[in-house]
Amino acid sequence: MPPQRVRVSAEDLRSLAAHILEAAGLSADHAEIVAGAFIWANLRGVDSHGVSRLPRYLELFENGEANAQPSVVTTRVRDAALLVEADRAPGPLALTLAMREAISVARQTGVAWATVRGTVHTGAIGYYTSMAAAEGMAGIGIVAGVPNMAYEGARGAAVATSPLAIALPAAEHPDFVLDMATATIALGKIAQYKARGEQLPAGVAVTADGEPTVDPAEAKIPLPVGGAKGSGMSLAFELLASGLAANPIVSQFHAGVKGHRQNAALIAVDVSAFLPLEDFKEIVDETIDAVSGLPPAGDGPVLVPGARGAATYLERTRDGVPLPSRIWSEIVEAAERLGVPLPEELSAA
Amino acid sequence: MPPQRVRVSAEDLRSLAAHILEAAGLSADHAEIVAGAFIWANLRGVDSHGVSRLPRYLELFENGEANAQPSVVTTRVRDAALLVEADRAPGPLALTLAMREAISVARQTGVAWATVRGTVHTGAIGYYTSMAAAEGMAGIGIVAGVPNMAYEGARGAAVATSPLAIALPAAEHPDFVLDMATATIALGKIAQYKARGEQLPAGVAVTADGEPTVDPAEAKIPLPVGGAKGSGMSLAFELLASGLAANPIVSQFHAGVKGHRQNAALIAVDVSAFLPLEDFKEIVDETIDAVSGLPPAGDGPVLVPGARGAATYLERTRDGVPLPSRIWSEIVEAAERLGVPLPEELSAA
Repeated sequence: MPPQRVRVSAEDLRSLAAHILEAAGLSADHAEIVAGAFIWANLRGVDSHGVSRLPRYLELFENGEANAQPSVVTTRVRDAALLVEADRAPGPLALTLAMREAISVARQTGVAWATVRGTVHTGAIGYYTSMAAAEGMAGIGIVAGVPNMAYEGARGAAVATSPLAIALPAAEHPDFVLDMATATIALGKIAQYKARGEQLPAGVAVTADGEPTVDPAEAKIPLPVGGAKGSGMSLAFELLASGLAANPIVSQFHAGVKGHRQNAALIAVDVSAFLPLEDFKEIVDETIDAVSGLPPAGDGPVLVPGARGAATYLERTRDGVPLPSRIWSEIVEAAERLGVPLPEELSAA
Repeated sequence: MPPQRVRVSAEDLRSLAAHILEAAGLSADHAEIVAGAFIWANLRGVDSHGVSRLPRYLELFENGEANAQPSVVTTRVRDAALLVEADRAPGPLALTLAMREAISVARQTGVAWATVRGTVHTGAIGYYTSMAAAEGMAGIGIVAGVPNMAYEGARGAAVATSPLAIALPAAEHPDFVLDMATATIALGKIAQYKARGEQLPAGVAVTADGEPTVDPAEAKIPLPVGGAKGSGMSLAFELLASGLAANPIVSQFHAGVKGHRQNAALIAVDVSAFLPLEDFKEIVDETIDAVSGLPPAGDGPVLVPGARGAATYLERTRDGVPLPSRIWSEIVEAAERLGVPLPEELSAA
């Protein structure tokens, strides 16, 4: 029986993913950017947005839903406002370029807002906001996508599981990185319950017809977190991201227009406009210490957003990225099909 | 038996509240601003942030926690970044002035971020973001305050029920106004359960010691919405609002420093930087129509954020603001104590 899991070094995986993307038509620079976003997600333990997406991205390029040679055009529509036309680029490309620009503008203006129009699959939004934190800025990101979540009081898929991410620089602690969907449970988590043969908790998902269920095989639509709250956030993110991009998704979806489309908004805030960066980082550290040091309510430690991902990052940077054999086989297959040689040690994996 | 409830016209109530605040030491201009925020909340049905707060504000002025004659100083620290030193002003004053400035700056730069430092009680955050929507802008607001909510995995009050508000202009529909706390239930709602002699739903609050309870008399600490999600948002808002204001609340609270303090961040985004305002409003309308028109999951209509408040606003503008007799008596008492005459028709109420 083949092993269930392989471990691949992050550098090898990044290089392989980049070469595959390049062979699929991306420029070398763009391929590096997308691969970098995948590997970050894998290193942080966000495997649902890591290289497991690679085969699906290739499909999207092949069927024309995503554009492998996009011309991503950034317009500074006002001093602190950017409009990034993604031209159906993969999200990791459009959003990385958008956040780079936002950071550069925020250095001058203190804050910059980038509206990103028309990407295909956003990837891990925490990555782009973390780019800002790494530059001494607060990074905020929201995404709008195709409805796949319920809306309080309505039946069926109504709005998207649109995430919110907020990243902030710390000093001694890892950067604060909140990256949360507006849904109670991720679709990927539902699949994990199914694979383990376990029932779902009550109240996290409904069937395709909108009936409550705890059977993961029947659960097709996650419920919004906090009912009206998650619903309202998701709808607000659609209006902010898609509305300012003049590219509505939710209203089009319900009018029968389908297809993979996403929009996003990224904000960078230059901390040093308000106070010395070191002072801010100290406040972040002290606040993390205060919360982490509270008496626990259960058995586990009190965690702050980003702590677990940072620990996984250290472990996987050292030991390699664990990949299910099925995912690894798909990647190897894609490499062979596109004539991309495997690095020597990987071909032995 | 006296009536349980009185109805007072919004204009009379606004004028009375303003005169009482002026008699308590505020300038006429500042008193008008604070009264305007109270009345907006009452008209929208957010009675917990309406004139019921007036007696408490007077106490805060008298005991020196709030400053009736603050010098609110706004510094444009960068082209698109404002730092507003509230000088212990009541939140409605500092945040109204901050949002006015943010709107004015966003007209030039496309987006403006205002950090508001050191207010006392923020009031209805939806009001300030609605100011932006009324000017054709997206308004976003977050607040940081003194811990009164649980944090996922920790025991006791750890972080604040810090709200998020997002307001967006619509065309035919009322403006979209999301105004949500990061807690599962408001403290005021717990008090309502207690008054009605009803049990709380499970999983919304804990006792002062952090034990789960459904007894509203024992429930002292609301739980965060979505566990780690509401916790993470609240902590992020503390770091964004208080961190950028160099005025940490959560770490100070856990170090034993108490007192009424809040910080906030307000964002204004000029829609017309990205697309014609009329086009944006049309997208908002169409999206609201799409969601409101979905098949309902239950008996009620599918509501979007702001719809209920807008309906209440129309009704109360026409019929007056209903106030519990107890609140009305407190306001009349305050007026008499400060030598503020009641308008003729009110003295008969």
